[in-house]
Amino acid sequence: MVSKKIAVLPGDGIGPEVCRQAVKVLQAVAERFGHRFEMRSHLMGACAIDATGDPLPEATLTACREADAVLLGAIGDPKYDNDPSAKVRPEQGLLRLRKSLGLYANIRPVTAYDVLLNHSPLKRERIQGTDMVIFRELTGGIYFGEKGRTADGTGAYDHCTYSRDEILRIAHLAFKAAAGRRQKLTLVDKANVLETSRLWREVVREMAAQYPEVEVDYLFVDNAAMQIILNPTQFDVILTENMFGDIISDEASVIAGSMGLLPSASVGAEVALFEPIHGSYPQAKGKGIANPIAAILSAAMLLEHLELNTEAAMVREAVDEALHNGILTQELSPNAPYSTEEVGSYIAFWI
Amino acid sequence: MVSKKIAVLPGDGIGPEVCRQAVKVLQAVAERFGHRFEMRSHLMGACAIDATGDPLPEATLTACREADAVLLGAIGDPKYDNDPSAKVRPEQGLLRLRKSLGLYANIRPVTAYDVLLNHSPLKRERIQGTDMVIFRELTGGIYFGEKGRTADGTGAYDHCTYSRDEILRIAHLAFKAAAGRRQKLTLVDKANVLETSRLWREVVREMAAQYPEVEVDYLFVDNAAMQIILNPTQFDVILTENMFGDIISDEASVIAGSMGLLPSASVGAEVALFEPIHGSYPQAKGKGIANPIAAILSAAMLLEHLELNTEAAMVREAVDEALHNGILTQELSPNAPYSTEEVGSYIAFWI
Ligand SMILES: CC(C)[C@H](C(=O)O)[C@@H](O)C(=O)O
Ligand SMILES: CC(C)[C@H](C(=O)O)[C@@H](O)C(=O)O
Repeated sequence: MVSKKIAVLPGDGIGPEVCRQAVKVLQAVAERFGHRFEMRSHLMGACAIDATGDPLPEATLTACREADAVLLGAIGDPKYDNDPSAKVRPEQGLLRLRKSLGLYANIRPVTAYDVLLNHSPLKRERIQGTDMVIFRELTGGIYFGEKGRTADGTGAYDHCTYSRDEILRIAHLAFKAAAGRRQKLTLVDKANVLETSRLWREVVREMAAQYPEVEVDYLFVDNAAMQIILNPTQFDVILTENMFGDIISDEASVIAGSMGLLPSASVGAEVALFEPIHGSYPQAKGKGIANPIAAILSAAMLLEHLELNTEAAMVREAVDEALHNGILTQELSPNAPYSTEEVGSYIAFWI
Repeated sequence: MVSKKIAVLPGDGIGPEVCRQAVKVLQAVAERFGHRFEMRSHLMGACAIDATGDPLPEATLTACREADAVLLGAIGDPKYDNDPSAKVRPEQGLLRLRKSLGLYANIRPVTAYDVLLNHSPLKRERIQGTDMVIFRELTGGIYFGEKGRTADGTGAYDHCTYSRDEILRIAHLAFKAAAGRRQKLTLVDKANVLETSRLWREVVREMAAQYPEVEVDYLFVDNAAMQIILNPTQFDVILTENMFGDIISDEASVIAGSMGLLPSASVGAEVALFEPIHGSYPQAKGKGIANPIAAILSAAMLLEHLELNTEAAMVREAVDEALHNGILTQELSPNAPYSTEEVGSYIAFWI
């Protein structure tokens, strides 16, 4: 019996809907095991701008800092995307949250579920058995470098920087994960062009000696973007910098047949954060069609982070029940769809 | 009857083999139409480093400047990739060539050939009808920004910059291409994070008024990396910056079922350059298994650039003959493969 504080940031679009189901599942876990999960919701993203003018209000940040873990829905609203001159954007809240909480590693497992292989745009024989984890650096690189306009206003710049320490800390996590899996680590970079990539390659090559059981591969990002589609089963752990990780982890998500299945963890020095990889999908908001499974599997990762492994395993089994019995939302079951709420309740029921 | 100078840069790995077939086809065109194509080979890439110490010898650059068009095979050698501290790398030759010749737009058509749909890793119904052209900016961005190590050696940086003019000139090309095709242009950027991307979006939005017939879409690069696989037929012309273009154009190449089919043109203020998008593929060097079609279709683009459209159409028809009659190299015809030489000769025969 444990007592934990979980800060919930439902965010925008379908974020609140899928979060509600993940919270329901966590509540079921708490009841079943006699735990106490104190779950409070806080504003972040477009909803926070609308309410307070700030995408990441101080109160939200404080709540996250005081929590044992953070569960995030999704953030973003097209009304901000389509205004390039907007000074305040929902994404700034997310980026500031990552930086403030020191969430330097974004961890994204990509699995091809056998029962869903027919939903993938890729041929079955190519993807069957896919089981990779992408480690994306999350608080460095071009995302957080200096950026701005040139003095005469006719140009713009974004600086990409990396230090050895930034590379070392996430690389250690990735090497350890690989050691506990199929012992293969692939560094994705652009070392034939970028100096930062050459530094990544140097640091990883040096570290490799400390993990002799792990086989290390180096792949240019353009080649990786092909290999992920051509032959995804070749990958075990992929390690990469922030911008490349953003692109290839979303690309890899298509293998699963639906983004609605894929969770992620962002870990760091302080608290860890868990979120589905899908965005706020504003077109689907309020329609009850959003898939809550990615949020629920994010909750499973959260439980593992809290070392509640039996509990997490039970959530995963309940998700498998839903997958096997076709209790699925519209994108995976167009003819007999279940609602967001129904899928969530079904999974909670199995806990 | 015309007389043209074509500088040929066979390069490394399979570059020379596929170039030889493209040259053979160009010779067949010259004979058939009574043209004179003066084609001379020059060193570039790893072979140039080995011979002269410089991946782009002055003589090669001069020959390109004096030519009406440049035909390139491929460059790169693993012995340089695996030495991050190497001071001279084959890629530097290519980057310097692009910059020196002002080749600011890399144009890559991606077509799903009906007869080859079964070779794609993607399901037939997803890709049938794919016909897009990617316009990748080629002489700006993070590729050419300041780069280096921090003074204490523990960090590295790469600066990404763009000016309005750099964006305008390629965007005009892309808008014009879209106007002559299906009238759709998609700008791929990361405007929710990068200042350079916000500048791209501003400039493209302003320009859109000049091309009222063209519908303009904006897509974040992570989303684009998914959409290209999920629903490639939605795209007509894609416009993007250098680094994103490198990644998504290689990603998009998997649709075709083989990289060995895809040509590219790099155009600019001065001479234009044509090359297959595949790399030097060193493992296949000298085995006669490399597909020459991408190089031959690059030669077709070269002919179009020289306004020899009837000639180019004839090359394309000859390639279609080879595709329809199964005169294909190993990767597309594993059971009854033809050699590089045989495929090239067959196509030249049809001219
Ligand atoms: C919303 C955006 C800033 C964010 C990112 O690019 O990191 C998102 O795409 C993600 O991957 O979490
Ligand atoms: C070889 C390399 C420098 C080059 C690039 O990244 O531009 C290649 O990948 C390409 O796309 O032509």
